[in-house]
Amino acid sequence: MSTTDKVSIGIVGGTGYTGVELLRLLAYHPRAGVSAVTSRAQHGQQLSDFFPSLRGIYDLEFSEPSLEVLGACDVVFFATPNGTAMKLAPELVDRGVKVIDLSADYRLDDVAIWEQWYGQTHASPELLGEAVYGLPEVNREATRKARLVANPGCYPTAIQLGFLPLLEAGAVDSQRLIADAKSGVSGAGRKESLTTQFCEVGDNMKAYGASGHRHLPEIKQGLQRATNAPVGLTFVPHLTPMIRGIHATLYATLTRECDIQSLFEERFADEPFVDVLPAGAHPETRSVRGSNVCRLSWHRPQGGDTLVVLAVEDNLVKGAAGQAIQNMNIMMGIDESAGLNHAASMP
Amino acid sequence: MSTTDKVSIGIVGGTGYTGVELLRLLAYHPRAGVSAVTSRAQHGQQLSDFFPSLRGIYDLEFSEPSLEVLGACDVVFFATPNGTAMKLAPELVDRGVKVIDLSADYRLDDVAIWEQWYGQTHASPELLGEAVYGLPEVNREATRKARLVANPGCYPTAIQLGFLPLLEAGAVDSQRLIADAKSGVSGAGRKESLTTQFCEVGDNMKAYGASGHRHLPEIKQGLQRATNAPVGLTFVPHLTPMIRGIHATLYATLTRECDIQSLFEERFADEPFVDVLPAGAHPETRSVRGSNVCRLSWHRPQGGDTLVVLAVEDNLVKGAAGQAIQNMNIMMGIDESAGLNHAASMP
Amino acid sequence: MSTTDKVSIGIVGGTGYTGVELLRLLAYHPRAGVSAVTSRAQHGQQLSDFFPSLRGIYDLEFSEPSLEVLGACDVVFFATPNGTAMKLAPELVDRGVKVIDLSADYRLDDVAIWEQWYGQTHASPELLGEAVYGLPEVNREATRKARLVANPGCYPTAIQLGFLPLLEAGAVDSQRLIADAKSGVSGAGRKESLTTQFCEVGDNMKAYGASGHRHLPEIKQGLQRATNAPVGLTFVPHLTPMIRGIHATLYATLTRECDIQSLFEERFADEPFVDVLPAGAHPETRSVRGSNVCRLSWHRPQGGDTLVVLAVEDNLVKGAAGQAIQNMNIMMGIDESAGLNHAASMP
Amino acid sequence: MSTTDKVSIGIVGGTGYTGVELLRLLAYHPRAGVSAVTSRAQHGQQLSDFFPSLRGIYDLEFSEPSLEVLGACDVVFFATPNGTAMKLAPELVDRGVKVIDLSADYRLDDVAIWEQWYGQTHASPELLGEAVYGLPEVNREATRKARLVANPGCYPTAIQLGFLPLLEAGAVDSQRLIADAKSGVSGAGRKESLTTQFCEVGDNMKAYGASGHRHLPEIKQGLQRATNAPVGLTFVPHLTPMIRGIHATLYATLTRECDIQSLFEERFADEPFVDVLPAGAHPETRSVRGSNVCRLSWHRPQGGDTLVVLAVEDNLVKGAAGQAIQNMNIMMGIDESAGLNHAASMP
Repeated sequence: MSTTDKVSIGIVGGTGYTGVELLRLLAYHPRAGVSAVTSRAQHGQQLSDFFPSLRGIYDLEFSEPSLEVLGACDVVFFATPNGTAMKLAPELVDRGVKVIDLSADYRLDDVAIWEQWYGQTHASPELLGEAVYGLPEVNREATRKARLVANPGCYPTAIQLGFLPLLEAGAVDSQRLIADAKSGVSGAGRKESLTTQFCEVGDNMKAYGASGHRHLPEIKQGLQRATNAPVGLTFVPHLTPMIRGIHATLYATLTRECDIQSLFEERFADEPFVDVLPAGAHPETRSVRGSNVCRLSWHRPQGGDTLVVLAVEDNLVKGAAGQAIQNMNIMMGIDESAGLNHAASMP
Repeated sequence: MSTTDKVSIGIVGGTGYTGVELLRLLAYHPRAGVSAVTSRAQHGQQLSDFFPSLRGIYDLEFSEPSLEVLGACDVVFFATPNGTAMKLAPELVDRGVKVIDLSADYRLDDVAIWEQWYGQTHASPELLGEAVYGLPEVNREATRKARLVANPGCYPTAIQLGFLPLLEAGAVDSQRLIADAKSGVSGAGRKESLTTQFCEVGDNMKAYGASGHRHLPEIKQGLQRATNAPVGLTFVPHLTPMIRGIHATLYATLTRECDIQSLFEERFADEPFVDVLPAGAHPETRSVRGSNVCRLSWHRPQGGDTLVVLAVEDNLVKGAAGQAIQNMNIMMGIDESAGLNHAASMP
Repeated sequence: MSTTDKVSIGIVGGTGYTGVELLRLLAYHPRAGVSAVTSRAQHGQQLSDFFPSLRGIYDLEFSEPSLEVLGACDVVFFATPNGTAMKLAPELVDRGVKVIDLSADYRLDDVAIWEQWYGQTHASPELLGEAVYGLPEVNREATRKARLVANPGCYPTAIQLGFLPLLEAGAVDSQRLIADAKSGVSGAGRKESLTTQFCEVGDNMKAYGASGHRHLPEIKQGLQRATNAPVGLTFVPHLTPMIRGIHATLYATLTRECDIQSLFEERFADEPFVDVLPAGAHPETRSVRGSNVCRLSWHRPQGGDTLVVLAVEDNLVKGAAGQAIQNMNIMMGIDESAGLNHAASMP
Repeated sequence: MSTTDKVSIGIVGGTGYTGVELLRLLAYHPRAGVSAVTSRAQHGQQLSDFFPSLRGIYDLEFSEPSLEVLGACDVVFFATPNGTAMKLAPELVDRGVKVIDLSADYRLDDVAIWEQWYGQTHASPELLGEAVYGLPEVNREATRKARLVANPGCYPTAIQLGFLPLLEAGAVDSQRLIADAKSGVSGAGRKESLTTQFCEVGDNMKAYGASGHRHLPEIKQGLQRATNAPVGLTFVPHLTPMIRGIHATLYATLTRECDIQSLFEERFADEPFVDVLPAGAHPETRSVRGSNVCRLSWHRPQGGDTLVVLAVEDNLVKGAAGQAIQNMNIMMGIDESAGLNHAASMP
């Protein structure tokens, strides 16, 4: 495309938290503009009536999802519950529309594993092989040519970025990985629910899905690709009384001595959105609130063979909408950081 | 200045919440750049070591405040405690540097009242007459030519914007105004303090300064200018367990019938950062979180003569750093919205 | 009853916040024990499976609501949505069971006003005249003999207690009262709802129902009884990001000089659950968290004629379950404080 | 002592969070009463002026710490910063006063390790051997006869209770233990501090002390006693935006098959304050808020050899003041639960 054309964007499912975060980040994107936002429930309503934070910024109504509207876009983002994109994406891809799916529909290679964890029959398994897993730090080149990108989950992004340098270097035992992750409540989505009421999660902390969370196979798949070996991973997510943010605390057993700080710094030297702190630092989730950065550090307590990696991200940005825009920029040949230059909001 | 030169900015006192918010908002300002940030305590330290949220964005050290450094800037912001700007501003103004003071030093015309409320002798009372009170919705023209702008306080901004249309139209009794205001904790500043500890203000609500808060004379001064009459105002601020945001609930007695919605809409028709909601709406503070907008609505319960105006703003943006940048844009002949185009962060 | 018998208690609707708060407070009540807790949805389930906080404390299953079970109790509390108690209470009262309704069904004398505000036909209007409005500070004597007590709403309790001394003494203009009230989120009840999600109310403040909230007629009725004159009241409730607590900020115009501190202290001198602070103090909601106390203070800013009264309570205790137990104690001739001796949880 | 005498209690350092929690829990203790609360800074002030939550409950002034006052008590609690109790305890113990130290002064056997981690010279190392480590689930019998009890730290309580059944049964590899713990902010104490400001920790999550936290040697000492073998432990604490609560997520490698649920249930069968949930449950910190219970469950993800134990407690109760009172009850031959019967506050 010419350097002055604007990418025309469609968003399917614009009423959730990843949807409104796409809208926030795209509002002032220099090379892209939102043409259509669909919602069956809200169609006909102004976006800015539904989200007053968008007043004066968007003059656009929610529309019914249709091939006519979405097919006319250059790129379509699915910010929908699992199970929606897999029905609509095939036709859009056929029409030459680039599709970026923020749900889990195309994240797993193995349809059997997908169907087991997501409890439904996959509607377009033929695209699983083609879909590129959109972690730019791993698949940037494949993403450039992709027609369909599966945008990674929030936990998988932070956890993979934290483990990858170690696994790729063969520095840790891939069979004994532990990921203890803490998420803000927005990771549960915007919906009528009892379990995420203010009075249910406020001033409270709990683990959930400790026996098996849907992001487990996604993370294991990503880590196995890095090692070309089976991976043993224990993953325990926790619900934390904050709105945004993921803090992943990762534990691995060192199998050989190496310069860990260099390992991390070199692995991410050219990455615009991964920031390696000095050794011994403690990243805070608020340091990336509203920004697309994943910030990392590591510790080796008492000089033993257990390595601790700390990784933080904003689950709605690097863990969802920001990474999706990063993928769009890569797919469309735009500067990878376009629309993503925001300093984190502090405090 | 030419349309391509960048305004060179100095910030005095860059370690507080208004300081870091200036840095966040100025990071990607198209027409201005930060040249110097001073802090006696942190001088020599990288900004990004002190505020990890600025890593990769600023490559600048805190410097000692000095006339050499600050005098070389086009504009200097004071993000300091009360009592600092009044000592340094005179020399800077003399040297032709535009000064925008985010503290209270130049907000009151009457030095006696200032000294009574702020408990110190004013160091440069000769500038009180010249300083322009930087509420753009009132003083835009004067600000264009100003050498010294007193940036309004957070409560005064929301409360004045809510009352002004009614007072200017003579629609309410100026003797019986009530402002019940609720502020997030960041309004208290970034400092070692017991009263703003997480465990002291979390899950808690309280009024403070009900018998007299320093923003009272500032608000009264602004309202009196609008009415050319004495104003009777009861102002009760409250501390609310949120980080950012002010919600002002204003009560006034109607003295004549009028079309209140039109009054508000017309008053702010050309204002880029005041948004009048439809009658009967309830603005939320989060709808302006991180943005420079003040959002307003009104109610007339049971059709009586008591009018209720609701006004929300982000105390660190429209209530501080954002408004300061808006003032800088006006003073420097830049597009008034430059650097201030952010959709609010929701959720 | 003998001083050793335990009052047998039934609770209708034990799965909400007022229900579980009744259970918490009654767990160690020296003179009463819970015999039955009904819930259609959960019947057959152990209370302690539904509320893990009750593990080891209650060995009781939720039962179906039935006249057999409830009719065998000495006292039945309704912790149900509006519209349930009015259907079941008549038969219970007929059987000699004392009924305490925590919902709004019997709070208003005037059935027409009730039906207008609550949008349904009242099922037992014949009991409206008999039901005692259970504000002990006003109706203690009537409550002793009552068969049916309408437990006051959370806002009405704090607001009436704050205004009553002034109105009873004829010290303020009853036509120009303003109540600006801030509530924790638990006041909205325990239910699947979008508007009270953590991510919707966290780090956020908003007014709601500014044009008319259901507690308005209840408050006005109470205040009018105190003055024997019409009352003009503007009532604006706000949703605050805290779990428990109400902070009412009340504004009234003084009509004569009087010793206000003495007025408050004398009015509540014998009240076990109203605490008048020294003049000029600022009560915090956390100072009553989990306790049955309503704590009050007043201010007269700048010595003008506007009086500000600050009143705090825990909306689930003095504003609901605690006051209901206080009423039960009065009705059953038990020490009024039995089961209600708890120091507030701080922090 | 006779069954009607009340234990006379002294509290040294009553102005912090553990101090006021002792006061809350002791307010209605049936067999004990607070005779003296010392504070150099506040002496002469009423407790209830300093903590309004105690108004109407205590009529007692803070006094200067002195041997006269404290020596006349039956039991003295130290709710002081580390380094205070070790100076005063010896004389009190000599006079026959039972001492319960909530600080870390007597928790470690090895004075060299203590001095290394706490950075000061121990003032009474001769008492380290005598002091009983007050984890009742381990040392109940020794506590009965103790003159001096070292009350465990908040993290150590939850972490030891979670690991002990497994280590005592030799079911896991004691060399590869991981404790990922999340604490509410009150664990940092009540003090003027920047790092625990509402705006610094709110809506934020971070690890701290990942390379070595003072509670590490205390936990290792306790676990080593249980195994009679060296213990390898990685301990990473995290600061969580809640006021109260600790959630410990523990990871261990199974070394043999066994009935884990029975292991836990049998280990704690007679414990009044340890509650083992059904297998696969997820305890929430709020389920123990304000109560003295430690609630546990375990998971074995994907049937592998990594065992996950989840343990929650209120850091100020079972993690501090509640456990101290439990210890006092044991020492004084009172019912172990006296004063500790509180249902958790939910929500």
